Amino acid sequence: MNPMPSDAGADAAPARRGRPRSEAVERAIIEGVLRLLEEGTSIDALSIEGVARVAGVGKATVYRRWPGGKDEMLLAVVDALEEPPAEPVGASVRDDLVTLLEWYRRVGMAKRQSAVLRTMTSHVKSHPELWQQYHDTVIKARRETLHGVLRRGIEAGELRGDLDVGLLGELFTGPMLTRTVLHEGKDLPDGLAEQIVDSVLDGVRAGG
Amino acid sequence: MNPMPSDAGADAAPARRGRPRSEAVERAIIEGVLRLLEEGTSIDALSIEGVARVAGVGKATVYRRWPGGKDEMLLAVVDALEEPPAEPVGASVRDDLVTLLEWYRRVGMAKRQSAVLRTMTSHVKSHPELWQQYHDTVIKARRETLHGVLRRGIEAGELRGDLDVGLLGELFTGPMLTRTVLHEGKDLPDGLAEQIVDSVLDGVRAGG
Repeated sequence: MNPMPSDAGADAAPARRGRPRSEAVERAIIEGVLRLLEEGTSIDALSIEGVARVAGVGKATVYRRWPGGKDEMLLAVVDALEEPPAEPVGASVRDDLVTLLEWYRRVGMAKRQSAVLRTMTSHVKSHPELWQQYHDTVIKARRETLHGVLRRGIEAGELRGDLDVGLLGELFTGPMLTRTVLHEGKDLPDGLAEQIVDSVLDGVRAGG
Repeated sequence: MNPMPSDAGADAAPARRGRPRSEAVERAIIEGVLRLLEEGTSIDALSIEGVARVAGVGKATVYRRWPGGKDEMLLAVVDALEEPPAEPVGASVRDDLVTLLEWYRRVGMAKRQSAVLRTMTSHVKSHPELWQQYHDTVIKARRETLHGVLRRGIEAGELRGDLDVGLLGELFTGPMLTRTVLHEGKDLPDGLAEQIVDSVLDGVRAGG
């Protein structure tokens, strides 16, 4: 597995936190964390000091990037490991929804293939404060992107306007998340995003 | 909260495991486990011996009911704490799907209200063997009930026959599970099951 798929860490993080950064240094630190984890260091045993040493930077450099310390650094690593967020291009709502769901599918596949990513994710989930931070940054941003697409679809008359936007979003993401997060033994075949989006758009009633 | 809603433990367990049981003894043991947990005993510290003592039965009686020991007993407790499984009555497929989803909603609400049930569930989830057992008994049975309803709907010409039954099921359960399991901060309002079922049946395209 490539530990840094695309430019997720470099591209996504600044937009989210809104301050400039030296991408090379951030990347070195993130790769330092991954190297330690791959060599068998547990997440609990990771220290800013150890990471700084492996990355060839000073402790102060790490703290300058992530003033919140280890937890904030771990979130940046999870962020970097995940696929870069999907960017709906504003074509048809159907295509934008497929783009978003296809991104969930790719993240799901990446998690199945990467022991480190799985370990990191379950660490985040089992630490309520860290999970809250992850939710408030990463998950919230994803949901807002989705809701933006749905609102545009309602305004353009492509989607029904009588459903709550939150529920409308869950009708699309729910089936995909059920597979990627809850039923880890199940396939994530090519075309799954399209199948879900088209089925939810058109309904599953016979002869509809 | 009533620790034994309806007759879940007594009704559901024998059907699932196929051997007769003394319901009163089983109930006493399950209530013993709940009493210990409510008094602050951790799940790790629970012992068959301690449970037998509180329930007023012998250790051998506990093992006769659950030869797999503590893990099997814990699954019976989770089972008893959850709502009794929904029984689709074989009316319209739409109504049967609402019945099934309404059950997921009720279980989700019960988990939010019961610290013991939440603790038990996360214990099961964090122990792979126990989770596998839970999956092979409880979850598999639920999925088969759902798939039975869907197959009946396809045969009766009420549901499209071109979708994989697994995916078809996830279109209905996914949105509900996303709320109950993944987004614990979100509402589970009355009528949610109906809204999901009707939206997935009819689609969310405007003017559809």
